[in-house]
Amino acid sequence: MINLYQGILYILTGVKMPEQEEKKSQKNGWEITLRVRYSETDKMGIVYHANYFPWFEMGRTEFCRSLGISYKEWEERGIFLPCVEVRCRYKRPALYDDLLVVRTVIEKLERCSVSFGYEVLRQETLLAQGYTKHAFTNTQGALMSTPEPFYGMLQECFLTSPEL
Amino acid sequence: MINLYQGILYILTGVKMPEQEEKKSQKNGWEITLRVRYSETDKMGIVYHANYFPWFEMGRTEFCRSLGISYKEWEERGIFLPCVEVRCRYKRPALYDDLLVVRTVIEKLERCSVSFGYEVLRQETLLAQGYTKHAFTNTQGALMSTPEPFYGMLQECFLTSPEL
Amino acid sequence: MINLYQGILYILTGVKMPEQEEKKSQKNGWEITLRVRYSETDKMGIVYHANYFPWFEMGRTEFCRSLGISYKEWEERGIFLPCVEVRCRYKRPALYDDLLVVRTVIEKLERCSVSFGYEVLRQETLLAQGYTKHAFTNTQGALMSTPEPFYGMLQECFLTSPEL
Amino acid sequence: MINLYQGILYILTGVKMPEQEEKKSQKNGWEITLRVRYSETDKMGIVYHANYFPWFEMGRTEFCRSLGISYKEWEERGIFLPCVEVRCRYKRPALYDDLLVVRTVIEKLERCSVSFGYEVLRQETLLAQGYTKHAFTNTQGALMSTPEPFYGMLQECFLTSPEL
Repeated sequence: MINLYQGILYILTGVKMPEQEEKKSQKNGWEITLRVRYSETDKMGIVYHANYFPWFEMGRTEFCRSLGISYKEWEERGIFLPCVEVRCRYKRPALYDDLLVVRTVIEKLERCSVSFGYEVLRQETLLAQGYTKHAFTNTQGALMSTPEPFYGMLQECFLTSPEL
Repeated sequence: MINLYQGILYILTGVKMPEQEEKKSQKNGWEITLRVRYSETDKMGIVYHANYFPWFEMGRTEFCRSLGISYKEWEERGIFLPCVEVRCRYKRPALYDDLLVVRTVIEKLERCSVSFGYEVLRQETLLAQGYTKHAFTNTQGALMSTPEPFYGMLQECFLTSPEL
Repeated sequence: MINLYQGILYILTGVKMPEQEEKKSQKNGWEITLRVRYSETDKMGIVYHANYFPWFEMGRTEFCRSLGISYKEWEERGIFLPCVEVRCRYKRPALYDDLLVVRTVIEKLERCSVSFGYEVLRQETLLAQGYTKHAFTNTQGALMSTPEPFYGMLQECFLTSPEL
Repeated sequence: MINLYQGILYILTGVKMPEQEEKKSQKNGWEITLRVRYSETDKMGIVYHANYFPWFEMGRTEFCRSLGISYKEWEERGIFLPCVEVRCRYKRPALYDDLLVVRTVIEKLERCSVSFGYEVLRQETLLAQGYTKHAFTNTQGALMSTPEPFYGMLQECFLTSPEL
């Protein structure tokens, strides 16, 4: 069962958050639901491979928001997370109008970088698995050690994460 | 107040549908809520102008779904709606992480084409207004007169639409 | 006939510049050649309508460069040209791997805005016609009157432009 | 020295092909030059990480064309190369209006798949390294063994390739 407050939360965040998984979700990972856009397909009739990365971005954006500080606020406070590595394996094609779930977890956390892991699912079917690694940099793009409360927030989440 | 069923509907469709506006929405137009992606911004720090058009696409997709037949089904039944004209006026920039509403109405309906009108809002502020015109074509791309029940479905909606 | 220098110029700029049209091109408009990417197509097998606007952007970018100051330098000197209106009419679909020409001219020039007109062609066939209107703003996004030498540069070009 | 014919070839293909490297290029890899679009940047002021993959696509497209059969023709003859894995490491950011070189080689060739390797350079500076793996499938998306002359064409190129 979900309640009215959660229903409204879904509208605002686009985040799927079944009550019984709430704690687990908030501590260890996060799920979002998205609808595949026509613009994301290509002439092969499937989603173009590069278009999974904006979905991963949506996943980690909502994950950060769920931890208490939106990524927008990270940047407003002078901390940027440029992407330094990405990877994705495509098992089955995502199709136009599919309703997909993107699961995001923290795979690795270091003083100057963080790696997120992702799974894209259509109902119970795994479509793709990927990860993205991000450096912590300041406004000038110089590498920095993540200050508090950011590091602690990620660390608490990372330590309680299950293997994806 | 919204009820559980509607809460679930929001999750599935991503569509904002306050109960008191339900009939109006279903008959005359449709609203969706979306979150601006980082990938949609450009180095000016705002959303790149071309990226409003996929939002319009999301608007008319959910609009069609609300009328009873998803656009995916249109194509499965051999009816395609390639875009023949687009226009957009940008009043104020949309920004990263903004929670936006896209309102979609039918602006004009002819035997071989349909035009949708759109408004993009951040709370009460109008950010952009646009329209897209689409031809009805068959699988080979030849212009066709829209068959029933598609035409009737759009017509009923169009006739009861208010001016945007 | 084109010479070696121009051949190299083509490589560096991606700009098609047949010698006999050189003066006309430099004064009144500009042509670029581009190859349609797979990523620009959609499941209908044609180029997604929003993806013409980055081509228009390429057109005006090379046009500005041909006038002597690249748009990158405009921004470095504190002048930004956010898009305030766009329009496009699609006559025939552009397809994957098509070699297209984009012709760019100045359609209108005012103290605080400039409008560019575009034609997209595959050999002699007109595929699409569009325009984009841009405001001149400063770094803070406030409207400004274009300073010299920018205004004069555009004006000279505009006054000698033929109708598209 | 390049000659007029090659100069024209550059225009038609957008491919950089200095004469002295011609054989090497044609046998073992391929280079293209591209200009970074404004639409490819994000609010961090750099190219959004997902936007390197369409550049890789351009690289392998021109590579296939250089081998004698364009990828468009592959598809026309019923052979599709959906992407099954991608990876990219970003060393330094690509910026708006940068003139970049993308080098493409075949990294691995199997009966049912091919992997391409890529390097993105700004002059002598390596910005990113990546690879994409593609399955050979038929029109229905079923895995297939690549028929001749496609396999032989890739194999000859692969066997003479240097390490990237």
